[in-house]
Amino acid sequence: MQYFSPALENLVEHFAKLPGVGVKSAQRLAFYVLSLPEEEASAFAKAIVDAKAHIHCCPICQNLTEGDGPCGICASARRDNATICVVADPKDVVAMERSREYTGQYHVLHGVLSPMNRVGPDDLHIRSLVERVSAGGVEEVIMATNPDTEGEATAMYLSRLLKPFQVKVTRLAYGIPVGSHLEYADDATLIRALEGRREI
Amino acid sequence: MQYFSPALENLVEHFAKLPGVGVKSAQRLAFYVLSLPEEEASAFAKAIVDAKAHIHCCPICQNLTEGDGPCGICASARRDNATICVVADPKDVVAMERSREYTGQYHVLHGVLSPMNRVGPDDLHIRSLVERVSAGGVEEVIMATNPDTEGEATAMYLSRLLKPFQVKVTRLAYGIPVGSHLEYADDATLIRALEGRREI
Repeated sequence: MQYFSPALENLVEHFAKLPGVGVKSAQRLAFYVLSLPEEEASAFAKAIVDAKAHIHCCPICQNLTEGDGPCGICASARRDNATICVVADPKDVVAMERSREYTGQYHVLHGVLSPMNRVGPDDLHIRSLVERVSAGGVEEVIMATNPDTEGEATAMYLSRLLKPFQVKVTRLAYGIPVGSHLEYADDATLIRALEGRREI
Repeated sequence: MQYFSPALENLVEHFAKLPGVGVKSAQRLAFYVLSLPEEEASAFAKAIVDAKAHIHCCPICQNLTEGDGPCGICASARRDNATICVVADPKDVVAMERSREYTGQYHVLHGVLSPMNRVGPDDLHIRSLVERVSAGGVEEVIMATNPDTEGEATAMYLSRLLKPFQVKVTRLAYGIPVGSHLEYADDATLIRALEGRREI
């Protein structure tokens, strides 16, 4: 690495810090940036600064948003305010929205409970969720955290926390993914798929 | 993608333009940048602008360098000026230097001849190579372009171009890579390895 000029090495180091980018890839990306026209490179740099400066959490659902006040989904009059879908990450909101099936509101936790990584209830946006539910008007809370140990534990924790408010707490269905092959499904998924079987 | 705020979408688009980065990875990288502390993100943006602003080609070897005058390798008194290693890319200089075996000078073409991509001799730093060789003092020019069709063709073209100057033009040896297995070597490599066999 000492064969690069300092400015290039600095850029490589920044790229190498990105998740899933090793030193070799970082070098390739840095060389690509050098090959860009001046204005393209400046626009890239500006995009980073702008994103950092303008994006913050929506005061209601905690999803990432720009500008003052609540985000587009929270402010929308066409969405069902009686249903809240609880997700771990802003990326999960995008995944849910892509399905075009869900019309309710969201709540983004920004993580899951993880004693191993010292993430407790106070590190997540749980208090604001409880406040939303306790304010009334919410009929159903859908737990859409990931189906792994931590996502499960977080969903269980939240369902117990929300029980006193007399809301229906549901969990996304488990089962075999659409378009997949039975032979490749793991045992746990198959067991859940059997348990959740429905009459046709 | 319309579920992201404009600043975030803009950042994702910039990341998605990088080579080998798809939309999903670009989203992951953009979210990572958002999670960075303010000063880290600014430093990243500054690294891009700085690299673009300060890095240019060394007037002698055409390798990327900063500051005025020739690059560190060209300016070094400890390097053998009678040998020039011709490579396609600044990355190749790094690879050669990593071996700690080569002590001569370099010449970076910034590409290879490629009629398919409309890259002709005038698009590469060939004239400056010819000038260096014609100026005298050079005894050997090592062609270290990649061992593919275009790299081969470029090496052949340059060797013919440099013949009139009475310099020795050599090519890196072909053969089986160190640490590899014979059974996985392709035919072309094995044939070259046999051709280039040496007494032990």
